[in-house]
Amino acid sequence: MSTRESNWGRWGESDEKGALNLLTQESVLAALKIPRTGKRYSLGIPIQRSGVPNMEYRGTPQRLTMINHDDEAMAQANGGVPGVGAHEDQLVMPSHTSTHMDALCHVYSDHKIYNGHPHDGVSPYSGADKCGIENVDPIVGRGVLIDVAAAAGVDVLPAGHVITREELRHALDVQGVALAAGDLVLIRTGWLEEFMRTQSELLPQPGIGIDAAKYLAECDVALVGSDNSAVEAIPFDQDVYLGGHIVLLVDNGIHLVENLDLKELASDKCHEFLLAIGALNITGGTASPVTPVAVG
Amino acid sequence: MSTRESNWGRWGESDEKGALNLLTQESVLAALKIPRTGKRYSLGIPIQRSGVPNMEYRGTPQRLTMINHDDEAMAQANGGVPGVGAHEDQLVMPSHTSTHMDALCHVYSDHKIYNGHPHDGVSPYSGADKCGIENVDPIVGRGVLIDVAAAAGVDVLPAGHVITREELRHALDVQGVALAAGDLVLIRTGWLEEFMRTQSELLPQPGIGIDAAKYLAECDVALVGSDNSAVEAIPFDQDVYLGGHIVLLVDNGIHLVENLDLKELASDKCHEFLLAIGALNITGGTASPVTPVAVG
Amino acid sequence: MSTRESNWGRWGESDEKGALNLLTQESVLAALKIPRTGKRYSLGIPIQRSGVPNMEYRGTPQRLTMINHDDEAMAQANGGVPGVGAHEDQLVMPSHTSTHMDALCHVYSDHKIYNGHPHDGVSPYSGADKCGIENVDPIVGRGVLIDVAAAAGVDVLPAGHVITREELRHALDVQGVALAAGDLVLIRTGWLEEFMRTQSELLPQPGIGIDAAKYLAECDVALVGSDNSAVEAIPFDQDVYLGGHIVLLVDNGIHLVENLDLKELASDKCHEFLLAIGALNITGGTASPVTPVAVG
Amino acid sequence: MSTRESNWGRWGESDEKGALNLLTQESVLAALKIPRTGKRYSLGIPIQRSGVPNMEYRGTPQRLTMINHDDEAMAQANGGVPGVGAHEDQLVMPSHTSTHMDALCHVYSDHKIYNGHPHDGVSPYSGADKCGIENVDPIVGRGVLIDVAAAAGVDVLPAGHVITREELRHALDVQGVALAAGDLVLIRTGWLEEFMRTQSELLPQPGIGIDAAKYLAECDVALVGSDNSAVEAIPFDQDVYLGGHIVLLVDNGIHLVENLDLKELASDKCHEFLLAIGALNITGGTASPVTPVAVG
Repeated sequence: MSTRESNWGRWGESDEKGALNLLTQESVLAALKIPRTGKRYSLGIPIQRSGVPNMEYRGTPQRLTMINHDDEAMAQANGGVPGVGAHEDQLVMPSHTSTHMDALCHVYSDHKIYNGHPHDGVSPYSGADKCGIENVDPIVGRGVLIDVAAAAGVDVLPAGHVITREELRHALDVQGVALAAGDLVLIRTGWLEEFMRTQSELLPQPGIGIDAAKYLAECDVALVGSDNSAVEAIPFDQDVYLGGHIVLLVDNGIHLVENLDLKELASDKCHEFLLAIGALNITGGTASPVTPVAVG
Repeated sequence: MSTRESNWGRWGESDEKGALNLLTQESVLAALKIPRTGKRYSLGIPIQRSGVPNMEYRGTPQRLTMINHDDEAMAQANGGVPGVGAHEDQLVMPSHTSTHMDALCHVYSDHKIYNGHPHDGVSPYSGADKCGIENVDPIVGRGVLIDVAAAAGVDVLPAGHVITREELRHALDVQGVALAAGDLVLIRTGWLEEFMRTQSELLPQPGIGIDAAKYLAECDVALVGSDNSAVEAIPFDQDVYLGGHIVLLVDNGIHLVENLDLKELASDKCHEFLLAIGALNITGGTASPVTPVAVG
Repeated sequence: MSTRESNWGRWGESDEKGALNLLTQESVLAALKIPRTGKRYSLGIPIQRSGVPNMEYRGTPQRLTMINHDDEAMAQANGGVPGVGAHEDQLVMPSHTSTHMDALCHVYSDHKIYNGHPHDGVSPYSGADKCGIENVDPIVGRGVLIDVAAAAGVDVLPAGHVITREELRHALDVQGVALAAGDLVLIRTGWLEEFMRTQSELLPQPGIGIDAAKYLAECDVALVGSDNSAVEAIPFDQDVYLGGHIVLLVDNGIHLVENLDLKELASDKCHEFLLAIGALNITGGTASPVTPVAVG
Repeated sequence: MSTRESNWGRWGESDEKGALNLLTQESVLAALKIPRTGKRYSLGIPIQRSGVPNMEYRGTPQRLTMINHDDEAMAQANGGVPGVGAHEDQLVMPSHTSTHMDALCHVYSDHKIYNGHPHDGVSPYSGADKCGIENVDPIVGRGVLIDVAAAAGVDVLPAGHVITREELRHALDVQGVALAAGDLVLIRTGWLEEFMRTQSELLPQPGIGIDAAKYLAECDVALVGSDNSAVEAIPFDQDVYLGGHIVLLVDNGIHLVENLDLKELASDKCHEFLLAIGALNITGGTASPVTPVAVG
């Protein structure tokens, strides 16, 4: 286990990929050997106007029909016969909507993003000049579910609960799983399931604290996800604004995935699995909505 | 090889998944054994305002910065210290932008979408009531590249070239690969590479013709993708508006993926691979931008 | 005063302008003679994400910066010297946002919009084929404020209060103003001022009832606006869904303007004024945000 | 005629309204006396995807149907009977689309916007902190058409033609009109009419040059508009990037209105008129689409 406090410079001064550098051809091949059942799990929640967690300041995600059967004249103008046509949409949504992956440029601290790149390289028209989401290569690796809620014997951790390093270790012990460098770690609080079921208040939320984040970084994981809106607890641990993001995203270049649907993995007690994520290749993007695919 | 002309009713009267029903736990496990190198390939092209294929009627895809360092006061209002903040975007884009997967509701013929569902079930506010993109489970299977351009000894097929059944078979023969039921078939024309390199005219484009589409349906493939904007040739084969879509999407419930980046798979002569696709879970969506992930 | 129950056919079978036909060159010249002080009043409330009335189903109106000083390289690429650049936005908003004018196609009843045009002529891509907002010529006329709240001696009418014909007449009597054909009538409930001050619940709201709407139609007014979200009361009078819209917009072709800021007109007791409205020329639009201009 | 070179400080150090300060209750009352015919003119061109001038980098303006008759279930869920419903849109468009008014924050020079306010006060989420479009009070005043094309005896000035101070004076002489402080000046090049008729190339365009801009500032006008995309000629006069904007908007606080439809005013030889403009009250906006209303 590493004692380094930051991954800055570890993969070169110009690196924009962070801990995803830990994924290698060998680790990919090894991960392909994990599945036992071949069962596929979608970890993505719906993209829709309501019923899903959405920070109000981000506005309402919208799918708008751009063309439908009422526009069939367009098809006929292009040679279509009556009864033939197409349906198409426009999407208007935050890049941080629904289940999404934060790019390494998403958060900055001390005026720096990951690897010491300047914090002010994100311009409205061009987006991020460093560490945008387009730097994220296809992610394929060993997924590990740390079911903190199950290990605690509850359906959902208390609102605002700050998950500690010890709770992560305890859950791993209960599951009989050990973390390894390059793992893609998904932490279950139970929060999302409750929210979807009861449409409870968006905040507060359980999530990892700063020390738990440091633990994951020390374990040299490649990615951290959770079934809540910020991976970390809200209100923030120790009142440090975005403290968990700073440890993982900024200091250690570890990408985050939020609002994950971990219900089925948990109910199947599927704690190790193949995980594949194809983030959208959004030039200069600070995040991408994603549908992570797990195979158990 | 099947002689059925349509998959309607094959998986039940109410089915909305089509040929993706061919993916089973067994086929998934088998596909995981294909990779030899562990090399990952991103098949998604950039989402950006220009430089990529975009049908003009769909408008300009836009990533707009919603929050950046100039809004740091927002962070401080929430407890942040100076020098700490976040960058976020809004996305405005067609669901059929960039590399994307068509939902089975996308096209209709004789007033019906796949499986005989009515053509007019797409409303502006709610979207598709049947066969929307949210019905697409995680896709994991055996990917097969049919490199028609390479088999023809060219970098790119001629503009508007209609790929025949025989050309598909010939390319498979040259590659020494046989199609099997449930395969995820990606057809390379070379068009996208040329477009990205030369910013040539968007139309015409090479692509499969109606008989080639029927051949793929007869082979019982689960999905068809291509490195062009419509999988099928434009202008449409035999002047049948969306004729290839009708054979594959409408008649046979075979999802389509368009604007794929197949360059690296082709240059590596990687004709068989693991393919994983997580379409965004857009409620009522007629398509989803995707970044398919291949492992060679 | 007319006893006709509908204006259908009054200005021809193909008419799409409705009661705005009542505005003539003579009535315009007469209206220009009304102002006494020359004081200008803006009747438009802000377009912004929060703090203003917004029906949740319409999503969040957003002004997004598209270009700012951080993109100054764009200016330099076009010949700009350092220190020179431009700021630009993208707007994403409902056409019915903030202060807005409903087009005559906005509401239908018995499957018909105004003048018997079919209800299903609005397609996603093209918009309204009849009675779209682009049919609204510049509006210039005699504005009349009916300050129902003031006449009732209150700051704001009770939530959900249904304004009657008698209340309109009483307020006009108190003000010493008589309605005339072609008037542009603005009805003050006090609701918007209270909402803006207290950020109270959006619903219920006071507004006119069905009989009051019929009274205004009988008076042959050219337009009706109010300082609430639907001109009519919510919940709807007599539980008739959109009943006030049906009387005014559908039956009588009288355009509506909603979410008007009438505070300053009221506090100045400016009950007659010149009113000018330039609706945006949105092809096929069902409404337009507007900033009506009054001159007292 | 003033010889001042800049209006900075003229209306106070904190002023954000610029030359619109020249509009007074007296000037408004005087302007109401101008109309002779009572004929109304809309000076706004359509907002639509194509067929109108649109700078490509601004993306495609879109009106998208959000709700129509196919969503009638929404009406019934709220108490509507069959056959009753509503049509609504979402708008996605640049604030600088179609006929629009530039806010004083739109352009900066020497790192300053009008009145010396800093150039970097425009943040993505909040928009302009100074000189945003919400500072524009209702505009009512004397409109003056300077028909440079007609005075030159042509339908349209040559592409890229730079209008001089002398040409403005000559056109005014031909028309027999003298400019006065506080006038709202609209300059006709004929360009927009030709573009709309022939769908010619967007650039180059005729427009005023730097000296003509200085002349208008010296005349102490309150606003300048034109029937082209930038008021000033493109390519820019003397190769000064946005040179005309800098003289008018930055140095003198004179708002600009672009893409005006001046055809009918010109064909009626209506050179003096009442002009009313209600810019949308977009908090922090850098511009607003507008439909200016003239009365002859």
